[in-house]
Amino acid sequence: MLDFENLSKLLEENKYKEFMKEFDDINAIDAAEFLSQVEPSILPKVFRLLKKDTAAEIFPELDPEIQEHIISAITDFEISKLVDELFIDDTVDMLEELPANVVNRILHAASVETRAEINKFLKYPPNSAGSVMTPELVSIHASMSVSEAIERIRKTGKEKETIYVVYVTNKARVLKGFIELRDLIFSPQDELIENIMDTSIISAQTLDDKETAVSLISKYDLLALPVVDTENRLVGIVTVDDALDVMEEAATEDIEIMAAISPTDKPYLKTGVLQLWLKRIPWLMLLLISSTFTGSIITHYEAALGSVVILTAFIPVLMGTGGNAGGQASATIIRGLSLGEIRMGNIFRIVWKELRISVLCGISLSVVIFAKAMLIDRTSTMIALVVAISLLITVILAKFVGCTLPILAKRVGFDPAVMASPFITTIVDALSLLIYFQIASYILQI
Amino acid sequence: MLDFENLSKLLEENKYKEFMKEFDDINAIDAAEFLSQVEPSILPKVFRLLKKDTAAEIFPELDPEIQEHIISAITDFEISKLVDELFIDDTVDMLEELPANVVNRILHAASVETRAEINKFLKYPPNSAGSVMTPELVSIHASMSVSEAIERIRKTGKEKETIYVVYVTNKARVLKGFIELRDLIFSPQDELIENIMDTSIISAQTLDDKETAVSLISKYDLLALPVVDTENRLVGIVTVDDALDVMEEAATEDIEIMAAISPTDKPYLKTGVLQLWLKRIPWLMLLLISSTFTGSIITHYEAALGSVVILTAFIPVLMGTGGNAGGQASATIIRGLSLGEIRMGNIFRIVWKELRISVLCGISLSVVIFAKAMLIDRTSTMIALVVAISLLITVILAKFVGCTLPILAKRVGFDPAVMASPFITTIVDALSLLIYFQIASYILQI
Repeated sequence: MLDFENLSKLLEENKYKEFMKEFDDINAIDAAEFLSQVEPSILPKVFRLLKKDTAAEIFPELDPEIQEHIISAITDFEISKLVDELFIDDTVDMLEELPANVVNRILHAASVETRAEINKFLKYPPNSAGSVMTPELVSIHASMSVSEAIERIRKTGKEKETIYVVYVTNKARVLKGFIELRDLIFSPQDELIENIMDTSIISAQTLDDKETAVSLISKYDLLALPVVDTENRLVGIVTVDDALDVMEEAATEDIEIMAAISPTDKPYLKTGVLQLWLKRIPWLMLLLISSTFTGSIITHYEAALGSVVILTAFIPVLMGTGGNAGGQASATIIRGLSLGEIRMGNIFRIVWKELRISVLCGISLSVVIFAKAMLIDRTSTMIALVVAISLLITVILAKFVGCTLPILAKRVGFDPAVMASPFITTIVDALSLLIYFQIASYILQI
Repeated sequence: MLDFENLSKLLEENKYKEFMKEFDDINAIDAAEFLSQVEPSILPKVFRLLKKDTAAEIFPELDPEIQEHIISAITDFEISKLVDELFIDDTVDMLEELPANVVNRILHAASVETRAEINKFLKYPPNSAGSVMTPELVSIHASMSVSEAIERIRKTGKEKETIYVVYVTNKARVLKGFIELRDLIFSPQDELIENIMDTSIISAQTLDDKETAVSLISKYDLLALPVVDTENRLVGIVTVDDALDVMEEAATEDIEIMAAISPTDKPYLKTGVLQLWLKRIPWLMLLLISSTFTGSIITHYEAALGSVVILTAFIPVLMGTGGNAGGQASATIIRGLSLGEIRMGNIFRIVWKELRISVLCGISLSVVIFAKAMLIDRTSTMIALVVAISLLITVILAKFVGCTLPILAKRVGFDPAVMASPFITTIVDALSLLIYFQIASYILQI
């Protein structure tokens, strides 16, 4: 663990030289964490002390509020130095979070080339591969020898996001192949790149969905994924560390949507109460209104319920179990779709599988509830039978609804994660009550 | 996309030479996918055609059934060659999936050193950092010069899992620092390693939880994480590609547990019906039994319900909304705990935040249900009031239960994901009914 206290003390006592000595050893992530809790008034001063490249490493890791605070306190010239030092993808990420006036000031301060580059990247849609790539890559030509390629890496690689994979392009910048630095190191120095480069290229297009793009990095264990335009010209790369972030975000988004929350992009503790309320209330309201239909089913069978009140006692069991059984199926399918393990074409296999699982689950649960009704609740055999049969049918229907709706949602272009437990439960609640009352009126003749 | 059809045709026509020419260009992942759908009878033959190192790359990517099939068809000598070529971590992963007799045959065929190494790795607990690390890393000494270090990488790095980060150890193998290959390449060739190595080491211990370990890789954007034993001796590394797999698995596990499913480690379509049933039924059974308590609350208030049957119509609304509101809070907290954004110490801040959100949500929902009861269901003002007040209190309690239980579960050493929607819903169902009937008997004097 880092000695944050000691660092703070050095700052308080104005021992900047010693502070810089200690601070210089820290990695960018921990350094940003430390700066986040430094007194805001002295923050710009501390930031100014940092070396240019250290500052550029730390800056993208800071919270937007802190970035804004620093930007507002430093000169345009300092901003321009900072932005020219940052990786383009980090700058673009940052600009997307900052308020418009700050963004304008940064763009204004940046050099002409940097500004043009930033503007190009800001144009990619937020969920595209283009929006997470960086143009800072090393490219070589197929006609180079290994030693020439290594020389080129030495000359041009210093400011690049990675040098461990270099890309082979022709004069029109069309991607022809790639080679890992490790292969360059273990190959004879006079070997030609064209003889040893890998031509089975895995790549994404700028407008591809970013989650699909990063799934290639995880599937093929890549250090970086090349991103090309429609004419197959290399325009950027997505590195594995950015892929990790995208994957983490995607899983969080899935979990939030599955819990009926509109996805947030900020950590919980940093999100305001009103914002959190806004992310949750539309779904709660929608589900509330849907559940009133379930209520009206009860109203409809009011007479039956009045005559056999014990029936009401099993409503929570039926609704609860139905919701849980459907939720299991939908969560499994949603995750499978996210990971690409399940495709639209698998729908019949899935339904057949879930049907068998649901019969097994339904029978096991029905036997237990029948025994419980007879032995503990001491209901009549007929009522126990009504409950058991209803439960069996509810479980089968719940699993069917749970496994088909996510696939159908994807089919019509919705996020399958919407069809998770809350929605499935609401639908299954209504279905289970309908089944229950129908079977009750039939068997009990009410 | 790959031309699987053409490859199959070449095989069918026994054109092995042409087949090998085409097949050699394919990456290991796609090659494994192709082999998975080759006729099992000719599979061992095809596998034998592969070059030694190609075979070793493809083998770990195959399904356990196919691995077993190949192992059973090749000689002990061939097994020994294959295993010596595999990375230790891949071998260990593989052995964990194969049946005991196959494992024994593999261990028997392996060279003495490989077998000793494998056995050492098999001893790490399944969820430990040790179980996902590989010993195949490059280590150097602090007294080397840059050019000596690069020379050592050239000599020893070829079979290592990565050469992009090399580790500085002393004679006792204690980890002293690390350096990236890129820094070696951009440094003066006669510079000493001790002057340029990075000593702010981020590392894990062999027995650390593997998810905690890989979260360091994602937090600090590492290419590999060094793993040390209790005496700080370097014993292995976890590379970023393995971290991606662990993260993906961890997210899947969270989602499964949150949906009341015991986690599986196989893709859905490859898991049998009975296995899936076994993963789901214990939770359904447990939740079924819990929900019968909710049922007995209804039985307890049977008299009240009999006199004002319209009360029953609002049960689904109350139970459903309570479950959804609680599920939102618990999903948010569970994910925050998983990502390390939320810690035990935040509990009071979280409860205070959720309290305010729940009051906002509760009031919005109560107003709507009050209006609905009055205007659409045309209930008496008193009944509408009972429903609205019950809903407000239910939502507040649900969010409280939803945000505290995951943290408390973690506190006592359970997986917080258990405290997701299904459990929260079951608890909130009972609570909401108790509140509802209490308020009803008080206000309606029944």
